[in-house]
Amino acid sequence: MTFYTFTENKLRQFTERVFLKMGCPLADAQLAADVLLKSDLRGIDSHGVARLSGYVRLWEKQRINANPVIKIVHETATTATVDGDSGLGLVVAPFAMKIAIEKARIYGSGWVAVKNSNHFGIAGYHSLMAAEQEMIGISMTNASPLVAPTYSSERLLGTNPMCYAFPAGKYPPVIVDMATAAAANGKLEIAQRANQPIPEGWVQDSTGNTSTNPHQLKEGGSLLPLGSDKDHGSHKGYGLSATVDIFSAVLSGANYGPWVPPFVAFLEPPTDPVGEGIGHFLGAMRVDGFRPAQDFKDHLDNWIERFKSAKTVDADKKVIIPGEPEFAYEQERRISGIPLIDVVVNDLNELAKKLEIEGL
Amino acid sequence: MTFYTFTENKLRQFTERVFLKMGCPLADAQLAADVLLKSDLRGIDSHGVARLSGYVRLWEKQRINANPVIKIVHETATTATVDGDSGLGLVVAPFAMKIAIEKARIYGSGWVAVKNSNHFGIAGYHSLMAAEQEMIGISMTNASPLVAPTYSSERLLGTNPMCYAFPAGKYPPVIVDMATAAAANGKLEIAQRANQPIPEGWVQDSTGNTSTNPHQLKEGGSLLPLGSDKDHGSHKGYGLSATVDIFSAVLSGANYGPWVPPFVAFLEPPTDPVGEGIGHFLGAMRVDGFRPAQDFKDHLDNWIERFKSAKTVDADKKVIIPGEPEFAYEQERRISGIPLIDVVVNDLNELAKKLEIEGL
Repeated sequence: MTFYTFTENKLRQFTERVFLKMGCPLADAQLAADVLLKSDLRGIDSHGVARLSGYVRLWEKQRINANPVIKIVHETATTATVDGDSGLGLVVAPFAMKIAIEKARIYGSGWVAVKNSNHFGIAGYHSLMAAEQEMIGISMTNASPLVAPTYSSERLLGTNPMCYAFPAGKYPPVIVDMATAAAANGKLEIAQRANQPIPEGWVQDSTGNTSTNPHQLKEGGSLLPLGSDKDHGSHKGYGLSATVDIFSAVLSGANYGPWVPPFVAFLEPPTDPVGEGIGHFLGAMRVDGFRPAQDFKDHLDNWIERFKSAKTVDADKKVIIPGEPEFAYEQERRISGIPLIDVVVNDLNELAKKLEIEGL
Repeated sequence: MTFYTFTENKLRQFTERVFLKMGCPLADAQLAADVLLKSDLRGIDSHGVARLSGYVRLWEKQRINANPVIKIVHETATTATVDGDSGLGLVVAPFAMKIAIEKARIYGSGWVAVKNSNHFGIAGYHSLMAAEQEMIGISMTNASPLVAPTYSSERLLGTNPMCYAFPAGKYPPVIVDMATAAAANGKLEIAQRANQPIPEGWVQDSTGNTSTNPHQLKEGGSLLPLGSDKDHGSHKGYGLSATVDIFSAVLSGANYGPWVPPFVAFLEPPTDPVGEGIGHFLGAMRVDGFRPAQDFKDHLDNWIERFKSAKTVDADKKVIIPGEPEFAYEQERRISGIPLIDVVVNDLNELAKKLEIEGL
């Protein structure tokens, strides 16, 4: 496994070329590239440019519309539902978050449910848009079914992430951005490549028995909800994932549960959809709708400082403030560049050949 | 261990007598009793009348104000902060939720942060107030520190519950109501009484080592966040608990983290408060702010039916819809009564003697 390091700018230009070649308008190509680059910069390599080929394959199958007419289909003063017209979630979700922020600016809070969309990248990007405006940002999305609810041997829920971003004063925003499964699919993939057993509590086999086989998902198994088993609160992880599914899809009119279309082009969407595409839910609340913004930020700084200075189990491991490691990655990678593993670089250069654009 | 069964009505009248004797106005006594009875009816015995003595002891120490002047101290169209004036959370939280519902009725959504409050009972009560109005109800509260964040050997967070209630059509509302710790303190107490070891992953000792000793919390140990350890996502449970703490207290001006005052009267509050009392956060969103309410309810019914009919690991265990077991308890206990264990009955009769009111 070899790593190649690229400047942010080089990767950004390449990513924009791909989206432009798909037929995205320039502003959309730039925005979609920005979402993916943010992920790579923040060290979340699974959700960045490594996914470009996947987006292109869905576009080739006409499951992603590069030129969507994204519009509000239902609205009150502080709520709205947006139809993404099968566009890139990377473009649809920021469109929706902008509406939420605008409503929050006027009324204190704004909430937008989205249907007929696709994978929206990292949830943190969207929540951060609000946090940069002195608002609390909330984002969630449903995803294709990989997770079995407690007691189920069937996959009925996605890894359905939820994300909350809070603006601080001296410190970077606190960003809780988490899949509601016990372990991310990306962690499984690392174990698959190394052909190493995984901890109990991440997956179960097709009959519902716990398993340490990293390839279990390809054999009909399921990821387990956060909590892993009933004794350790898997019903809570299931409940959180259900919450994300209901907000993102039952509320918006997207597909939910086992009907969510797969992210991979080689699997066909269910033939009996209960809604349109996948769904997201985005929200923004003005901090100064509750107390003066400076008071909030001062106290969040104090919260951060208290938690960072906690006594720890090991002297070399500090309590981590949610969002802080990703912020540190971003500072560092903006300067020293973004490392990509060889398989990803090769895949992107193959993609460039196929699309007849300049490679990396 | 013997159980005695009481009618809802008898327990309700007793509970109202206690709150009236504390000096609560009649409407407040009735409301506070309703919140506690709802908990007992729904099978959440740890949060019902069993807590009455604890409320009285805090009132005796003047940490609960039976006659609070609850008021809005900050407001926009859809947001507000409420000062609970040290009142019972059982009264303050419904006051705040009513404001959220009223704002939602006008603007689509409403959000209220609460400071200077006390224990608010079950989160589900407050969320359900919104769900009964065809709204999505959200409620959370912080609590006195028992939980250690990932890598910490200190208790810095409460079991900080979050709750989401969604109105369905043919079925009872879906109610996700969960503490963000791996195991509820109530489960520990059961193991303590039986003097039986608890599963690994619920608690750690004072140096941060995992422990199966149910008495560990009395020896300086901590509860663990949902996820139990880093490999199984304890940083996610910590992140959720942090989210609840920030919404409930950093946003409202209540105490947060290790500064949250203890629920028990024999422990003194920190002498260096960073805010006032404990905090809650309550929200309501009109379902028809996003799509016609009947569409939402029909699809939530479909969601429920699909999950209930999932293939399961054991033939005798169905997938549970969040809130359904509690709803079933409520139907049954309204008819057959509420069972209380002898220690609780004795405690309540002692309380009656002390307060010079009619016992059970």
